[in-house]
Amino acid sequence: MTAHRPALRFAKMHGLGNDFVVIDATRKAVALQPDEIRAMADRHFGVGFDQLLLVEPAPHAGVDFGYRIFNADGGEVEQCGNGARCFARFVRDRGLTDKDRIRVQTRAGAIELQVLAGGEVRVDMGAPRWLPAEIPFAADAPALRYRVDVQGQPVQLAVVSMGNPHAVLCVADVDRAPVAQLGPLLERHARFPQRVNVGFMQVVAPGRIRLRVYERGTGETLACGTGACAAVVAGRRLGLLDACVRVSLPGGDLSITWQGEGHTVLMDGPAACIYDGRWLAPQPR
Amino acid sequence: MTAHRPALRFAKMHGLGNDFVVIDATRKAVALQPDEIRAMADRHFGVGFDQLLLVEPAPHAGVDFGYRIFNADGGEVEQCGNGARCFARFVRDRGLTDKDRIRVQTRAGAIELQVLAGGEVRVDMGAPRWLPAEIPFAADAPALRYRVDVQGQPVQLAVVSMGNPHAVLCVADVDRAPVAQLGPLLERHARFPQRVNVGFMQVVAPGRIRLRVYERGTGETLACGTGACAAVVAGRRLGLLDACVRVSLPGGDLSITWQGEGHTVLMDGPAACIYDGRWLAPQPR
Repeated sequence: MTAHRPALRFAKMHGLGNDFVVIDATRKAVALQPDEIRAMADRHFGVGFDQLLLVEPAPHAGVDFGYRIFNADGGEVEQCGNGARCFARFVRDRGLTDKDRIRVQTRAGAIELQVLAGGEVRVDMGAPRWLPAEIPFAADAPALRYRVDVQGQPVQLAVVSMGNPHAVLCVADVDRAPVAQLGPLLERHARFPQRVNVGFMQVVAPGRIRLRVYERGTGETLACGTGACAAVVAGRRLGLLDACVRVSLPGGDLSITWQGEGHTVLMDGPAACIYDGRWLAPQPR
Repeated sequence: MTAHRPALRFAKMHGLGNDFVVIDATRKAVALQPDEIRAMADRHFGVGFDQLLLVEPAPHAGVDFGYRIFNADGGEVEQCGNGARCFARFVRDRGLTDKDRIRVQTRAGAIELQVLAGGEVRVDMGAPRWLPAEIPFAADAPALRYRVDVQGQPVQLAVVSMGNPHAVLCVADVDRAPVAQLGPLLERHARFPQRVNVGFMQVVAPGRIRLRVYERGTGETLACGTGACAAVVAGRRLGLLDACVRVSLPGGDLSITWQGEGHTVLMDGPAACIYDGRWLAPQPR
């Protein structure tokens, strides 16, 4: 499957249960083929992870590192808030930098990560968008809330793009929300031509929500960072939330700050190293 | 959750996708609390494994090692064929022994493991039993096959104990076998007072079967070693199989040899090391 080479060192990390293999390629290039990434991603025959993060040298002045993200299927993707926190903790904990503010070149552009005093990491998730064409979402005119018909039943939702499309529904009790039923129906609804992530938000107080997210192409997850941002933006635009909101997800809590239109969304949350590993060359089954 | 201590070294291994954390406690005792085993077993917040194997010094003369097995819930259990193969490869590959035949004290008694020329490991799985009381299974008299009523429908099955109880059904096409439907109904059927593992066997040729197993308390698994043994014993007693049978499970192939009544069952199969790890103290979520 793969040519012989020395064992590949990695760290296994997680951010709210969203788990990552992190590989330091700053001193020596690491070339990973998609079939090896898939082999490593298998939770029984391999290491198991949601995404693999490759830490690279700065590709140009003005940033401290480069950073590539691969899904378990071997494909390269653009951004992941939980992964960005793990990235920042990795480069700090391993002594690759001593900066508190770390600038990183990703495929989606340069981002800045801030290691906070308590060890949590702040990620600037960029500015939200909500015009229908920016989602994309089929609507005659922009609105705070839309009515979407799902199998003949009306569903009220807000739409937000955090670089990826989100629909946000308000529910009275997130534990009883029909995530498994309504999630896939909305994900592939005709009004979302590029499909959509679906968040189910329970507003507990202006400074606290509970949230479950059905992720596009994946299903319900433990913690969706962009989903937390989208929910707070939607809730704030609807007049339900403060500027700083504690978001309780199944995998743990994030703090999301959004001062309003014209501002970017800040996400604060934990990242933890679980173990260090040395991956041996895959063996035939 | 756990007191601070140095990082805990482990190997991650698998036998046909049944995966194990293996810890060398031969030189220094390793005390693991159930809550730490559970934390390690979590596939997102921890390392992830089906079982944890603790390799210990020989507790007495006549064996080479001691060996303890823990489930993901932290409870200690008795035997696991796939784990025994990983154990043997671990002590050989790490240079803890250079013997081809390795005697090990388990909670279920002493077993002998043999490292074969090609790298596979042979495990003597002990003698099968099939009397109803030995399973246990409620029946008026011993038989090769029994008819069990499941929700008003008759199901033909054989019963075998390999230390744990197995029901074996013959099916025409294992890919279409009703594992998810019939498995849980038989597992908790009133005639199996200690519940039962349920194997669905397709006889391809006298020397080859395909098998899927619904494991008691777990559901369908990639590869059940005792289930492979039980299926071959049942098939051989029914006159369908040779003494040496290749068993194709979803996770890969085993070779099972049973010469007949009065003999023990031998299981040959692969074991592979995936990576070496250093587990860091669990951190709060």
